[in-house]
Amino acid sequence: MLTRSPAETLTAQLAHRFAERIRNRLLPPGSRLPSVRECARRHGVSPYTVVAAYDQLLAQGLIEARRNRGFFVRESRAEMAEPAAPAPARPAPRPGADGRTQPPVDAATLIRGMFRQVHGLDGVTKAVPGMGVLPPGWLEAPFMSTAVRRVSGATNLFSLSLQYGEPAGELVLRRALSHKLAALEIEAAPEQIVTTVGATHALDIICRTLLRPGDAVMVDEPGWAVEFARLTLMGMRILPVPRREHGPDLDVMARYCEAYEPAQRPKLFISVSVLHNPTGQCLSPSSAHRVLQLAQQYGFLIVEDDTYSHLAQQHAVRMCALDGLRRTIYVSGFAKILAPNWRVGYLAAAPDLVERFIDTKLLGTLTTPSLFEQALAHCLEQGQIRRHAERVRARLGAARARTVQLALQAGCRFVTEPAGLFGWVDTGVDTDRLAQVMMDDGYLLAPGSLFHAVRRPSSLMRINFATTQDAGFWRDFERARRQL
Amino acid sequence: MLTRSPAETLTAQLAHRFAERIRNRLLPPGSRLPSVRECARRHGVSPYTVVAAYDQLLAQGLIEARRNRGFFVRESRAEMAEPAAPAPARPAPRPGADGRTQPPVDAATLIRGMFRQVHGLDGVTKAVPGMGVLPPGWLEAPFMSTAVRRVSGATNLFSLSLQYGEPAGELVLRRALSHKLAALEIEAAPEQIVTTVGATHALDIICRTLLRPGDAVMVDEPGWAVEFARLTLMGMRILPVPRREHGPDLDVMARYCEAYEPAQRPKLFISVSVLHNPTGQCLSPSSAHRVLQLAQQYGFLIVEDDTYSHLAQQHAVRMCALDGLRRTIYVSGFAKILAPNWRVGYLAAAPDLVERFIDTKLLGTLTTPSLFEQALAHCLEQGQIRRHAERVRARLGAARARTVQLALQAGCRFVTEPAGLFGWVDTGVDTDRLAQVMMDDGYLLAPGSLFHAVRRPSSLMRINFATTQDAGFWRDFERARRQL
Repeated sequence: MLTRSPAETLTAQLAHRFAERIRNRLLPPGSRLPSVRECARRHGVSPYTVVAAYDQLLAQGLIEARRNRGFFVRESRAEMAEPAAPAPARPAPRPGADGRTQPPVDAATLIRGMFRQVHGLDGVTKAVPGMGVLPPGWLEAPFMSTAVRRVSGATNLFSLSLQYGEPAGELVLRRALSHKLAALEIEAAPEQIVTTVGATHALDIICRTLLRPGDAVMVDEPGWAVEFARLTLMGMRILPVPRREHGPDLDVMARYCEAYEPAQRPKLFISVSVLHNPTGQCLSPSSAHRVLQLAQQYGFLIVEDDTYSHLAQQHAVRMCALDGLRRTIYVSGFAKILAPNWRVGYLAAAPDLVERFIDTKLLGTLTTPSLFEQALAHCLEQGQIRRHAERVRARLGAARARTVQLALQAGCRFVTEPAGLFGWVDTGVDTDRLAQVMMDDGYLLAPGSLFHAVRRPSSLMRINFATTQDAGFWRDFERARRQL
Repeated sequence: MLTRSPAETLTAQLAHRFAERIRNRLLPPGSRLPSVRECARRHGVSPYTVVAAYDQLLAQGLIEARRNRGFFVRESRAEMAEPAAPAPARPAPRPGADGRTQPPVDAATLIRGMFRQVHGLDGVTKAVPGMGVLPPGWLEAPFMSTAVRRVSGATNLFSLSLQYGEPAGELVLRRALSHKLAALEIEAAPEQIVTTVGATHALDIICRTLLRPGDAVMVDEPGWAVEFARLTLMGMRILPVPRREHGPDLDVMARYCEAYEPAQRPKLFISVSVLHNPTGQCLSPSSAHRVLQLAQQYGFLIVEDDTYSHLAQQHAVRMCALDGLRRTIYVSGFAKILAPNWRVGYLAAAPDLVERFIDTKLLGTLTTPSLFEQALAHCLEQGQIRRHAERVRARLGAARARTVQLALQAGCRFVTEPAGLFGWVDTGVDTDRLAQVMMDDGYLLAPGSLFHAVRRPSSLMRINFATTQDAGFWRDFERARRQL
């Protein structure tokens, strides 16, 4: 709620909040502002206040009035008229039921929300149930600083700082990762491993090396918005593969492979096998086997994104284990379990591919910082990360139980069996609109439309079990839902 | 020289050295091995030994015999036949005078040489005069470990590790960089600065954001091979602009701009204004002004790569200073002066571009590690880097004086006035061949052909003043040159 204060009028407060949201693209270019009447009702102010606030936004060039249609966020001049900078091709937006042509939360916004606070209209940030990370407190582990102190002693600091370092990454870490992968039954020699600036960077290196603009790539749907955004930015043709209970829809995959001339066939399948985002599902051994058979038959490669590895039971099956890194490429990192800002991820692949990935890494960043790679190697070798992950899993299990209860009480239905970090729930209402309303309360949600390659209205939403165990959130959720 | 040893026969030694060089692509696919007679003469062994060594390489599938033409390094199966992984388009190689179709040192090899040791045929590594970095001992500064200790205390380590961090980079560093740029008369608010994984990453982010495959990009020629390689990998049309004494050839730039339909015109000019690599030349104020006028007239943007900033006098002129970051984008880093492995670079640009660069950074690596960004901020604020750079400049000045003497005595001619880190010298012989011969002695050279967008034979070479002040190198150089 807005509050009367001598420092800032209600009009100024309202204009200020909208302006901030437009700049952070939580209200992206082209999206419609609430009608004057609706805005006044929602914020408990008079229509005159809203009109005055919208006038200020008009004067600032942030919004425009369209005759008989209302107020819309302006397309920025830079995006419209910059000749040197064409906007990347995006899937055509589909108008929603209420005539909106753009969803309120796009992928870039969601990622930025991981870093920037979302302010409600009262200026308060409540929580970010839409985000895909554990609360910082969960990730804190005393062994982290011991490991950093150990590797940043003066002599070692000089020796690791003064040269660029190994292009493939610190050998000591690649050795430790080789052991770690062996425990998942994935055989990868240290020479088959390349370290990266987080798992995101590993996926980026792979796509840049193996794909050219216009290439077809199969991805999980629902799937992770950042993956769609990166592939779109790179000009790829995205072929969404529905995710079923035990894995990808093999019939759809086969149709994609058969429908095209050999040269037009999918080059890559990017998939999360274990604790899939957002459904939490795991690939079954027989699905894994059949996907690999398809890959063999049609000559595509598979990128297995194992970002949620640490949150899963050891026995979960990976395609990389079955295939022995022949047609498969393994990607993972540590951001979900420890020190996201250390930015250490990695990939493992066949030796001839690894050489090409190293070249791409060199042309993009030369090398990666050795200090955290050495520190992580130490933590891995001492078994500290394994034990830490066990504790986090136990804590997440308790949070999940509590959140599931609250979500069910709030009238949500779980579309898939709750597991891992994310719940995939049906709210019964359009979650794009719900996200917009709850943003006024200071919450950033992850609406279901975000997880589709071509955005479409959805009543689903992804929740983070660790950050939605507060009954207060669910009360606000129920109130917001009633408003729609 | 090979040595008779009970552990390894002469044949095995020779085969081993060639195999290593082929794997490291110092002998790239398609390049010709020396004739049996020449190889025998060069290494002081019998022709039978050479034939036996080549036989081993044939058996290992590393080389192939071509009737009446000799032995050639095989194209690898992976590069030839991998359907999912088309090789990026490369400029067609031109046959050299002696029928070689590929140069002995390509860009990826040169970068890898920054990290891997080059072994001579006797297994000894002598020096890497072709590399563009200062010797590690020069970069060592006691304040580095103080700064790292300061920012990695337990409390701060947790607070900087447990969240992803600011997408634009640590604010404290962006503030320090803003002050640093002000000293170069470049006005950039902290909000206009984005930190990156080294300057290479900054250039990569800019190109990925502003360019699409097929776009035309103007670059300095001679210029830095890694830049050519990245643009080629991304599918850009490279338009080389000859570098003259006072800056780029403006007539050539104007012709590029006029020769194309507006939609086909160059989108970007990427250039090193200060201590240009490899010529060491600096842009004159009037050239800077005229390049900016062209950019205005034809609507291209300018990326000013200021990698060698710390090695230059403060008064050198930058286009970014004249233009106020309107049509210009500034890029720099710290790898040439301090801790290359910390991998901290940055860019500065107009606010609307900065937003788009942050999105590209997010999709590629999410964020960058905060620890070294905070440590560098501390070093900058204390003036430590400025004083350190003064010391390095003095040391480099002395090295340059000595190296210039030796190079002149060895019969080289300086094509441009010696300045900064690099000398650009005419050796009077084909430097591709010279590089191959000197590799046998354990030296990695940077032949002139490497600095051209389309490779062509050249008698020029780039030397690093800091690593070629040893008279022994120049004796070996003179001996190698006599062999050609």
